[in-house]
Amino acid sequence: MMQACGLIVEYNPFHNGHVYHIHEAQKASNADCMIAVMSGNFLQRGEPAIMDKFSRTKAALLSGIDIMLELPFGYAVQSSELFAKGAVHTLNEIGVSSICFGSEAGNVSDFIKSYNHVQHEEESFQVVLKQSLNKGYSFPEASRIAYEHIGLSDHHIDLTKPNNILGYSYVSTILSNHLNIKPLTIKRTSSGYHDQAITGSIASATSIRKAIHQDGSLTPQVTKAIPAITGEQLTEYRNEAGLWHTWENYFNILQYRVMTMSLSELASIHGVEEGLEYRIKKTAPNATSFMAWIEAIKTKRYTWTRLQRIFVFLLANIKKTDIEPLRMTKSVPYIRLLGLTSNGQAYLNKVKKQLDVPLISKLSRQPDPLLQLEERASNAYYSVLPLTTRQKMRKQELTPPILIGE
Amino acid sequence: MMQACGLIVEYNPFHNGHVYHIHEAQKASNADCMIAVMSGNFLQRGEPAIMDKFSRTKAALLSGIDIMLELPFGYAVQSSELFAKGAVHTLNEIGVSSICFGSEAGNVSDFIKSYNHVQHEEESFQVVLKQSLNKGYSFPEASRIAYEHIGLSDHHIDLTKPNNILGYSYVSTILSNHLNIKPLTIKRTSSGYHDQAITGSIASATSIRKAIHQDGSLTPQVTKAIPAITGEQLTEYRNEAGLWHTWENYFNILQYRVMTMSLSELASIHGVEEGLEYRIKKTAPNATSFMAWIEAIKTKRYTWTRLQRIFVFLLANIKKTDIEPLRMTKSVPYIRLLGLTSNGQAYLNKVKKQLDVPLISKLSRQPDPLLQLEERASNAYYSVLPLTTRQKMRKQELTPPILIGE
Repeated sequence: MMQACGLIVEYNPFHNGHVYHIHEAQKASNADCMIAVMSGNFLQRGEPAIMDKFSRTKAALLSGIDIMLELPFGYAVQSSELFAKGAVHTLNEIGVSSICFGSEAGNVSDFIKSYNHVQHEEESFQVVLKQSLNKGYSFPEASRIAYEHIGLSDHHIDLTKPNNILGYSYVSTILSNHLNIKPLTIKRTSSGYHDQAITGSIASATSIRKAIHQDGSLTPQVTKAIPAITGEQLTEYRNEAGLWHTWENYFNILQYRVMTMSLSELASIHGVEEGLEYRIKKTAPNATSFMAWIEAIKTKRYTWTRLQRIFVFLLANIKKTDIEPLRMTKSVPYIRLLGLTSNGQAYLNKVKKQLDVPLISKLSRQPDPLLQLEERASNAYYSVLPLTTRQKMRKQELTPPILIGE
Repeated sequence: MMQACGLIVEYNPFHNGHVYHIHEAQKASNADCMIAVMSGNFLQRGEPAIMDKFSRTKAALLSGIDIMLELPFGYAVQSSELFAKGAVHTLNEIGVSSICFGSEAGNVSDFIKSYNHVQHEEESFQVVLKQSLNKGYSFPEASRIAYEHIGLSDHHIDLTKPNNILGYSYVSTILSNHLNIKPLTIKRTSSGYHDQAITGSIASATSIRKAIHQDGSLTPQVTKAIPAITGEQLTEYRNEAGLWHTWENYFNILQYRVMTMSLSELASIHGVEEGLEYRIKKTAPNATSFMAWIEAIKTKRYTWTRLQRIFVFLLANIKKTDIEPLRMTKSVPYIRLLGLTSNGQAYLNKVKKQLDVPLISKLSRQPDPLLQLEERASNAYYSVLPLTTRQKMRKQELTPPILIGE
């Protein structure tokens, strides 16, 4: 029986650190097949991907990933809990034996001990969390205070670190659902998640994107930090689409949207809570850029990430009623295949008869409600491209997955 | 007491035929004050105006109109019945003694006789109308058949002619509401409503727009058919906004909208009836232009005008629930002033204490629901302009009316 190891990724863009992660995960898991579940055209922190999911998939399939699955949009642009739920269950449905994630902590037993500790102190955690939220702290800030209160730091997990937070959510999803998956972690080395500057051949995706957008081209500094195939995909995408996506590409369309919506419609958008519709509406007419607009809306309570996510939902017209059902369901309703290698195909041939959910390889005419959100999000993502390019990109969604190495 | 004569206009753009109409109406009515009620940024036949309402207002105020009122958006982009209701009641609220409209028939007693005849034959008219609609005829076509059936042509009104249809609706609104307004009509002379080519100094607005859009500039043929002030306004607008509005400017945004809406949302848009949401949705991905899209949706039942109106409602996000109340109310909830001359000001000073509804001169923070639609429609209209221009244009909506000749 082939053994598969799962990775939870965004690849925005795919860089040398990701290659390192794949190799280390393969070593740690000793798996025969590396399966990644990746956010599609919009990312966890509420941003459009620098290039589309198919281009990012190609780069990964040529660099060690055997099967690329799509994390459904409904889970992808969410805080760690729902993000982890979608990602871990997708990997569980495809039958991985292990999941290997990068973390600042680097020791999986610390995550497990922390999970057990939090389970034990759940009640007191919830009390302090609620108190802190009521005081006007943002959710991440309030969580940090509550974790500190129950003494989580004694268990060596610093939950102010972004990759520790995600890793904790993965472990928590695995353990609380009693999934037959072994969690593994690799210590993140040189470069922090949010590092702004590229300093060598291993750089954060944030710093790589920043350099690309600033220079408007792939400088030697950038190419040093990414595999050649990522450079090729980026260049090809830019030639075809005329741009690498940033939020500013969507400013006009977002301003139009908000300025033609009623307050009650705005309040029906997922993530718009606590009267935020008034702030979004009020700041719209005078906004001169996406960044300036977020700056004008931002308060202590609303983090930048939370507001960015809301703008994804506004852009793609995602309602509260679209997302609420995801909290209730136990697992994911389908697995969507973006691409695979011949090794991935061999694995799939072995497992596909035992799958509990449909394996979807292209969008159909009557898709699952969750796939309808995917389609809507992709339509929104491609809407800023020239007519012929966006038509071509949208058609990609309807074609079979990418197959490498036949 | 000053006497006012009302005109119901679109001025898209204001041309020599409109100057003639004002003079003839003044002679026929012997009024001291000429008041026009004009469609705003979107027109009755479901099109964006070639330039904004303020530019069109300026041209008219310098050419014989004393007071320019805005026909609320909720009435403006509608078939003749609701259009006439909004226009006639607006003029009634401002206290006009007469309304003078252009028509192919040219004799007001024919309209009155026709109205009485239709009242008398109402039942049989409705039966034939319904039968024809059930056979799949469009509404205008079905009406024509029903009018013919009850023998309306014996009364010299040909209700296949667009200006006769509108005139008939004005007369019908006046008579059925027992308004103290005298209907007057002027025979339209040389140029038909839909004439495609400019043939002299009096040309249809359709032919003038067509020539402007085709040439992308104001050729001598165009300038011959419009007053100098219209030419100046058109040039100024083009310099500032970078375009003269056509539907094609809105194609990308409309395609984005439809491709991020659910079928049920699409069905909630005003005018989307009888499963039309499926046709609109199905044809969206492959549409390559606005015109091609309408062409793909069109059937015998859905006229071009009806589909264009639906696209206005889609663009401005106007729901069925936004428009339904307008059918129930007896009159209009306010009068909105776009501009006036000193003579218009003198008239207003005389009547303003007797007005039954508020006279609104700029959009306020808590507008009437009907004014909220106005704002939404204007936001949609301006959304295709460059950032600084659209901000400036939107601010115009919040400033006091244009005053000429102080």
